[in-house]
Amino acid sequence: MTKENLIDCHNRIKLFIHNTPVLTSSLVNNRIDAEVYFKCENFQKGGAYKMRGATNAIMLLSQEQKQKGVVTHSSGNFAQALSLAAKNLGVKATIVMPSNSPQVKKNAVIEYGGQIIECEPTTKARQSTADNIVNNTGATFIHPSNDPNVILGQGTASIELLYEQPNLDAIFCPVGGGGLIAGSALATHYFGNNCHVFGGEPLEADDAYRSLISGKIESNKTTNTIADGLRTQLGHHNFPIIQKHVNSIFRVSEIEIIEAMRFIWERMKIIIEPSSAVAFAAVLKEKKQFKNNKIGIIISGGNVDVNNLPFNI
Amino acid sequence: MTKENLIDCHNRIKLFIHNTPVLTSSLVNNRIDAEVYFKCENFQKGGAYKMRGATNAIMLLSQEQKQKGVVTHSSGNFAQALSLAAKNLGVKATIVMPSNSPQVKKNAVIEYGGQIIECEPTTKARQSTADNIVNNTGATFIHPSNDPNVILGQGTASIELLYEQPNLDAIFCPVGGGGLIAGSALATHYFGNNCHVFGGEPLEADDAYRSLISGKIESNKTTNTIADGLRTQLGHHNFPIIQKHVNSIFRVSEIEIIEAMRFIWERMKIIIEPSSAVAFAAVLKEKKQFKNNKIGIIISGGNVDVNNLPFNI
Repeated sequence: MTKENLIDCHNRIKLFIHNTPVLTSSLVNNRIDAEVYFKCENFQKGGAYKMRGATNAIMLLSQEQKQKGVVTHSSGNFAQALSLAAKNLGVKATIVMPSNSPQVKKNAVIEYGGQIIECEPTTKARQSTADNIVNNTGATFIHPSNDPNVILGQGTASIELLYEQPNLDAIFCPVGGGGLIAGSALATHYFGNNCHVFGGEPLEADDAYRSLISGKIESNKTTNTIADGLRTQLGHHNFPIIQKHVNSIFRVSEIEIIEAMRFIWERMKIIIEPSSAVAFAAVLKEKKQFKNNKIGIIISGGNVDVNNLPFNI
Repeated sequence: MTKENLIDCHNRIKLFIHNTPVLTSSLVNNRIDAEVYFKCENFQKGGAYKMRGATNAIMLLSQEQKQKGVVTHSSGNFAQALSLAAKNLGVKATIVMPSNSPQVKKNAVIEYGGQIIECEPTTKARQSTADNIVNNTGATFIHPSNDPNVILGQGTASIELLYEQPNLDAIFCPVGGGGLIAGSALATHYFGNNCHVFGGEPLEADDAYRSLISGKIESNKTTNTIADGLRTQLGHHNFPIIQKHVNSIFRVSEIEIIEAMRFIWERMKIIIEPSSAVAFAAVLKEKKQFKNNKIGIIISGGNVDVNNLPFNI
């Protein structure tokens, strides 16, 4: 995946995504003792950066493939993103969702024009249901994170951030399946000016942290984290990019995630989801080693259920 | 209060306030069938537009007055705004707060450098406690809304909005004490291009609505609204300006306020307080008569207690 691939990708998807704003806060800067630049993908179409990769992956299909539609399995932001990206491009999207997915998430997919096929709430059932749809309809399966074209798309958030702030010392991303941090690491490698990439990961779903140590893809031992976007498993397309281009992954506790989220909500008055708070929590935790640095943070999304917030627990 | 007064005021306070962003949302525009421009004073210093009026009022004091400090009574955004504005200008601020004010609000005042004097939770005790401080210390009392210099300051939000969107057909503001809508009406009169000003007011605290009908200042019969910033009483400095320059005030129910707030949180991913949602709720309710209009909405603030949200009631 070259610099040209990234530039082509960005030019390809530009019309279908927002160049989201980069926000700053003197309160945050004082707290961290650094300059922090928040790339606000919570303001992205569909409420998350996932729109970038989904759009790129669909646009690269052949005309014949587009006519047969796309499939994914996701109960989260990628389900909404693929539905919306497909609708924008006149393509049919089928979303395999576990039968126990919250109604609010199903509604969002339907609203964006996706067709839901329910399955048993197991990883195996998700994949076999998606496989069946591919076999029966000829639709193309698009993985939420472990796909080179998705990775390239996700990287465009960091391209935009680095166009706006070319001299960042560091970019922090949350780490779930690894699509965002892999894309960000590639973008930073090609567009950064001696800029390093760091991940934030929940202690309760720390497969990427342990994979970097062992040198092979480790499984999550638990996924008991409020950061619902980060419960997924690291993929084999993402891992080698992360090994090569990511400096460190920092792990944070559930309390640290919630307090970071509360800080952003209360002080910056923007709604970020717990997964985004993980990246900020990592910055808060490690602030000593980033003193006086210019730090970018990818605020990955803002899709939360306001009926079910963690603050008054 | 002339156009020159407003321009002078804006130039005076510029360095101490944010020129807050104006946001748009295609989802909102589709819902309303109009173009809506949100002037985001929730991103203002101190989290609300009140910083504008507080800064202007303090800056217009004589050197001798500044040395003796300022006093107000408020348990809301003006308490924080006066504290922060005073700190920025090297002036001492004393805030009279009812003894039953939430600790979170007291903490905010203390954090911004204000000194709290508690009083019994009655209107009479508030005023007499403030009067005592004025008599004993020579400090200047600054009313949160019923003060010409405060009104001018609050009007600067609409000046900025109209610089950015000169052809607005309407500007909507929430109505509490009347400082914001009076200032906005003056600014729109001098800077707008055939632009009309409308208010949103809770049905449960509709003194301004009834005052416009009767032609004299009416009292609130209840203040049982979630829009805590709008429970205050319309003032005699504001009322004649509102009579002269405001087209209509629309009343909204508590359910309409909460649903409008939920819509903005979920769709725009920004945190607005219930008082701001009142203005948007009025637009939603009256959207038929504003079809295809360009509508500005002053999002007055974003100070909410995230431990105590109305969504899952």
